[in-house]
Amino acid sequence: MAARANDDTIGSVGTVETRFLDLPSPLRLDCGAELHPVRIAYETYGNLAPARDNAILVCHALSGDAHAAGYSADRAGAGTRDGFGAEERDAGRGEQLGWWDGMIGPGKAFDTQRFFVVSTNLLGGCRGTTGPSSTNPATGRPYGSDFPVITVADMVRAQRAFLAELGIKRLAAVAGGSLGGMQALEWAVLYGDDVGAIVAIASTHGLRPQGIAWNAIARNAITADPDWQGGHYYGTGRAPARGMGVARMVGHITYLSAQALAQKFGRRLQHADDIRYVLEAPEFAVESYLRHQADSFVKRFDANTYLYMSRALSYFDLARQYGAGKLVDAVRNVSARTLLIAFSSDWLYPPGDSEELAAALHAAGKRLELHVIDAPYGHDCFLLEEARQTPIIRRFLAS
Amino acid sequence: MAARANDDTIGSVGTVETRFLDLPSPLRLDCGAELHPVRIAYETYGNLAPARDNAILVCHALSGDAHAAGYSADRAGAGTRDGFGAEERDAGRGEQLGWWDGMIGPGKAFDTQRFFVVSTNLLGGCRGTTGPSSTNPATGRPYGSDFPVITVADMVRAQRAFLAELGIKRLAAVAGGSLGGMQALEWAVLYGDDVGAIVAIASTHGLRPQGIAWNAIARNAITADPDWQGGHYYGTGRAPARGMGVARMVGHITYLSAQALAQKFGRRLQHADDIRYVLEAPEFAVESYLRHQADSFVKRFDANTYLYMSRALSYFDLARQYGAGKLVDAVRNVSARTLLIAFSSDWLYPPGDSEELAAALHAAGKRLELHVIDAPYGHDCFLLEEARQTPIIRRFLAS
Repeated sequence: MAARANDDTIGSVGTVETRFLDLPSPLRLDCGAELHPVRIAYETYGNLAPARDNAILVCHALSGDAHAAGYSADRAGAGTRDGFGAEERDAGRGEQLGWWDGMIGPGKAFDTQRFFVVSTNLLGGCRGTTGPSSTNPATGRPYGSDFPVITVADMVRAQRAFLAELGIKRLAAVAGGSLGGMQALEWAVLYGDDVGAIVAIASTHGLRPQGIAWNAIARNAITADPDWQGGHYYGTGRAPARGMGVARMVGHITYLSAQALAQKFGRRLQHADDIRYVLEAPEFAVESYLRHQADSFVKRFDANTYLYMSRALSYFDLARQYGAGKLVDAVRNVSARTLLIAFSSDWLYPPGDSEELAAALHAAGKRLELHVIDAPYGHDCFLLEEARQTPIIRRFLAS
Repeated sequence: MAARANDDTIGSVGTVETRFLDLPSPLRLDCGAELHPVRIAYETYGNLAPARDNAILVCHALSGDAHAAGYSADRAGAGTRDGFGAEERDAGRGEQLGWWDGMIGPGKAFDTQRFFVVSTNLLGGCRGTTGPSSTNPATGRPYGSDFPVITVADMVRAQRAFLAELGIKRLAAVAGGSLGGMQALEWAVLYGDDVGAIVAIASTHGLRPQGIAWNAIARNAITADPDWQGGHYYGTGRAPARGMGVARMVGHITYLSAQALAQKFGRRLQHADDIRYVLEAPEFAVESYLRHQADSFVKRFDANTYLYMSRALSYFDLARQYGAGKLVDAVRNVSARTLLIAFSSDWLYPPGDSEELAAALHAAGKRLELHVIDAPYGHDCFLLEEARQTPIIRRFLAS
């Protein structure tokens, strides 16, 4: 186990290390390309039962990584817990908390006293798993934009090949929020027999056009930065930090609700209660916050990975991929019990999406639960409203 | 009159030319600077009554200009009618329609058979009125980012000085949508005795934090473009077109509702019904649309003007400026009858803003009408839902 329980810390998996595993075979991708080698960065929490039937795969969202729970043993770089307010929660700690630490651990939603929780960095990632910043064996240099365009299904196939190496053929559950929820849904459709349950939170069967647009704008901000250099910026000493900053700002605002922004910042000015008539410097508190968020993000995340993840989550469309346009036909292969959780103020992955999916699952005769939680923080609720999700998930997994 | 009626065109003011007027005195700005010279680009439609009591000032929004109605005599450059669907309406015409042509003309909302309608390009603009691309008399070169930071009140003072030159001391009405509505409101508060009525459409007494954030992101996209060159790009052969494109994309999506995007584009792909696995090229119809919008915008609009307009509309805050934080105190000086129109699907200037303003005006004992129109197109409704606004405005102006 990578996780070492710390007896002094109730409810924590303790200090963890990210580990790495190389897939034994090339990975065939939706685009037709084959990828090899493929390295998977991962963490595990809890113990695999002798029957190997208690594994839960948790899947991260666009900007996450394998470090989902506990304190990172690598103080310098690891840890990606972000989202609204999360930076405050971590203030003063040298070791960063995993991005879903509130949900994974002894007595938590994904209870490591009962389950063996596995978290991987996604295919295309920049935190240890093979992605655009990895070495292209054909050239000996980083792939850059020569990395093949990937899909959520490709991510899932990589996870499945990885789990086979751990000796896990069937998952008790797959769970995730946002892009992570898409992976859970893709697992249920693609490998119906290999998943006992899925938990898809603040997610969708297919991003709406406004969400596609926001993602396209963020990608445009990155590729418009001359330092992107057509995607081959590694080793040049220049990376598209400015474009990434703008992309992150766009993303950040779409993750929050207008109400949450109003409560947190209002129209508060940076300098006392007056304006300074400057064109460029942040005058409003919300501007300053956005710049801070952008600056800290570009230090830890690779721009090309952002592009590939953004592409993959925009492509994801269960109805198109598996139902010739009909969602109900797409989910006929699902045998996993399904838990859908959505948040009232999430306008990027609105509750209506989960309701459409629930209706399709219901029409196809599947077992499902849908919970729409009334909460004000927007899409980021899946990272923040842990206390309200926990009893729902625990009850669902226990049944 | 600049407008020449075309007898063959019912309801049109015909072909119009933009004219120019230089203010006789320096303009004192909120930031403390004085601006001189100041040239105002303007158009007029209809005839000024001998009593000079039938003038209506219409105020444009962030990206507009003086060409509000009729066909532009300047085929090459003039005309700024944009917004959702507007490009289709103009398809096939060599002469571009004014941005509010559906509202201004014989028998229209602002009836040129009765009113003398005046439209100016705003202070800070790039379509004939003095702005950052104008020559700085201190250097003989364009101001660039040395142009003073301006406010909506500064725009209004420039308009008032301009109208004085036309011999107009009192306006029958001031009208506009979005930033244009802010000007109408500022007129009513700043020059209570000089305005008979105001019509503020899809506007607000102060942009909400999410709107401030979107504007800050758009400005960051521009200033992050190395071709912005600290604001001094004129004459260098390089302008921040890429950053402006991203800024426009952000703006464009905020002007539309999620529902309108879904109806118009859905998840439709560009190439038949399959994805092509390309990282950069638009794959979805909505992506292609955004790029088209961005490309056409950067050809006609100056990036620095965008920055200054965006700053001004973010600053605008009636309660802060005139009421020590209390909106009801800010509007005590208003004597104009007030018509507020908002649109149900406008999430950038949500109906709640107009409702707050209406409550403050009501509490201060002012005469007002508020109409919230149930319409699906988002903020752009103020440019599109002309047929539904027209009877409301005509009745209001007739009373």
